[in-house]
Amino acid sequence: MRAAPARIGDPVGAIDSPALVIELDAFERNLQAMAVFARTCGMHLRPHAKTHKCATIALQQMARGAVGVCVQKVGEALALAAGGVRDVFVSNEVIAAPKLARLAALPIDVRLAIAVDSVVGIERLAAAVQTAGRQIDVFVEIDAGQGRCGVAPAEAGALARQVVAHAGLRFAGLQAYHGGAQHLRGVAEREAAIHHAVALAVAARAAVTSAGMACPLITGAGSGSFMLKAASGVYGEIQPGSYVFMDADYARNAAAPHAPRFAHALFVKSQVVARHLAHAVVDAGHKSHAIDSGLPTVWGRELDFINGGDEHGVLRPRGSEALPALGETVWLVPGHCDPTVNLHDHLVAVRGGLDGGVVEAVWPVDARGRLD
Amino acid sequence: MRAAPARIGDPVGAIDSPALVIELDAFERNLQAMAVFARTCGMHLRPHAKTHKCATIALQQMARGAVGVCVQKVGEALALAAGGVRDVFVSNEVIAAPKLARLAALPIDVRLAIAVDSVVGIERLAAAVQTAGRQIDVFVEIDAGQGRCGVAPAEAGALARQVVAHAGLRFAGLQAYHGGAQHLRGVAEREAAIHHAVALAVAARAAVTSAGMACPLITGAGSGSFMLKAASGVYGEIQPGSYVFMDADYARNAAAPHAPRFAHALFVKSQVVARHLAHAVVDAGHKSHAIDSGLPTVWGRELDFINGGDEHGVLRPRGSEALPALGETVWLVPGHCDPTVNLHDHLVAVRGGLDGGVVEAVWPVDARGRLD
Repeated sequence: MRAAPARIGDPVGAIDSPALVIELDAFERNLQAMAVFARTCGMHLRPHAKTHKCATIALQQMARGAVGVCVQKVGEALALAAGGVRDVFVSNEVIAAPKLARLAALPIDVRLAIAVDSVVGIERLAAAVQTAGRQIDVFVEIDAGQGRCGVAPAEAGALARQVVAHAGLRFAGLQAYHGGAQHLRGVAEREAAIHHAVALAVAARAAVTSAGMACPLITGAGSGSFMLKAASGVYGEIQPGSYVFMDADYARNAAAPHAPRFAHALFVKSQVVARHLAHAVVDAGHKSHAIDSGLPTVWGRELDFINGGDEHGVLRPRGSEALPALGETVWLVPGHCDPTVNLHDHLVAVRGGLDGGVVEAVWPVDARGRLD
Repeated sequence: MRAAPARIGDPVGAIDSPALVIELDAFERNLQAMAVFARTCGMHLRPHAKTHKCATIALQQMARGAVGVCVQKVGEALALAAGGVRDVFVSNEVIAAPKLARLAALPIDVRLAIAVDSVVGIERLAAAVQTAGRQIDVFVEIDAGQGRCGVAPAEAGALARQVVAHAGLRFAGLQAYHGGAQHLRGVAEREAAIHHAVALAVAARAAVTSAGMACPLITGAGSGSFMLKAASGVYGEIQPGSYVFMDADYARNAAAPHAPRFAHALFVKSQVVARHLAHAVVDAGHKSHAIDSGLPTVWGRELDFINGGDEHGVLRPRGSEALPALGETVWLVPGHCDPTVNLHDHLVAVRGGLDGGVVEAVWPVDARGRLD
């Protein structure tokens, strides 16, 4: 494994490139703004840890009032629990019996929840928790418009009844999350998609009550939709992830009214390793940052980042901007924070800004590569 | 870190998904075909280890006649040297003095080479090798048409003279690599780009000899161009990487005449975790496979893989193909092998095919995440 790219107390200039750097002032303002928002709305905040995969950050979120975290993978749950997180919701379907056994074998003081969308999934889960002798909260996932996981709303009641047929499973409510809607640019189109998702959640809740059961909670909503779902009065819990860091993709979303604003807090530190007449080349390509939501943008300079492949980024100036010099630092804003974090073993946390700041902490990305 | 997804002797069915799986028969045929090709042409084969990042594979390549390997990063050189590789060419520019110091501090029995395209790079390199008391081979990189790293051919002679002005640096020749040309689909357009690159290499060699120096070697060429560069008679060394695994992107290249064929040997094992009326969902998204060169294809089935985000893939049938069942295994061919391997900690090597085979070895991806 790569050694940590910096030590506590290092000046920013000494951080080995490419490295993932958190600007702590912006990061903490982001944490605080979402905590205040959720508290003001009277909603549970359960941030998605798939974004940061870091127990230290999860614990900071919980210290500010989050009820726990979400993850997508059993391996993430194991890694965060090992780092001290005691309330984890696997907001995704798990079918492999060995994975369910590993999850159920977590210490009994780790409160667990999981999503299901099939009878097979429920039965395998029930077998695992029975073997482990524990209880688990179960959310029936509905397809909130994305066409990925989740049942149709009308099927939610029957699936909830399947859940409570097993002693170790507690029906905790519904999950209704529309990943694609997070990234619709305009407020109006995002609102339309979210209103549709909310209507589906309402229909699913009706199916649950028609089946003679209470629906304790509806959970969902990411960093692009939490404000709309909060306003609906239907959701009791929001699951935003990216707000802690933000990224170039979310920055392209128009801001919704009455929503808190978040600042870029995550950067890839890169260095110019080649410089020619009309372009410079930095040492960060798409092994350093994910490009599924577009290329990174260059922070604070009028430079275009052009795809240079796995290990390089090509920079071209816009207008009269000067090219950076050989050896100079260039700060990149990743297109998509979640898969970018997954490329790195460490998060270097800097206090005092990107120019002249000091490394205050180096956090391991505990669940990096935890695909399992 | 994730535990190994399988143990030696496990049946294929027991491999924990998602996992990166090598089909050993195809893999070894690929290794052998390139070794035979290079030997037949009388060329040095120096495979690019940025593809596999695995010392075990590098040593297998060298056992079949490769003179050593290329890497793009100092961290990769360190990781492979720690795994027993004794001849490493950093085919990329390095400017940071601490990185050059780490490279130069490698054991003296590791033969080292590096690319340069600036006087600053040469001077910093010279300082590092002087401190370490060693020698290093230096290749002057020319821009072979990609517009990334490398000087214009006419400047190659002056830069070569700068190299030999330093006691610890040996001018080893020219690097002329055109990454983009590897992926031109048609043979004719790929030939045109490579002929241009070869012409630039010839011009650079002339500049070196005009400066009163010999040019011992011209190195370059990837898995899409090695056969063309070999035919040129100008290159003495080829650097193909992807041929060991192949990927969906290289499969879209038309085959060049007289070139060996390579088979898909790298797969992501995924599992269906949700299944609905018209689609199924597998547990592999773009944290499991890189999508910079397109989405994965589904191996052996008429299914389209649709982007389901970081942790999911959505499958839709073509024609009358049946949807896979909940819990079923689906084999994916990654769009681009290099950054896909970098997402995994282990390579699971299977003998006897993807259906019914057995795990013969589990290799660590030694240089995974070595961005440094």
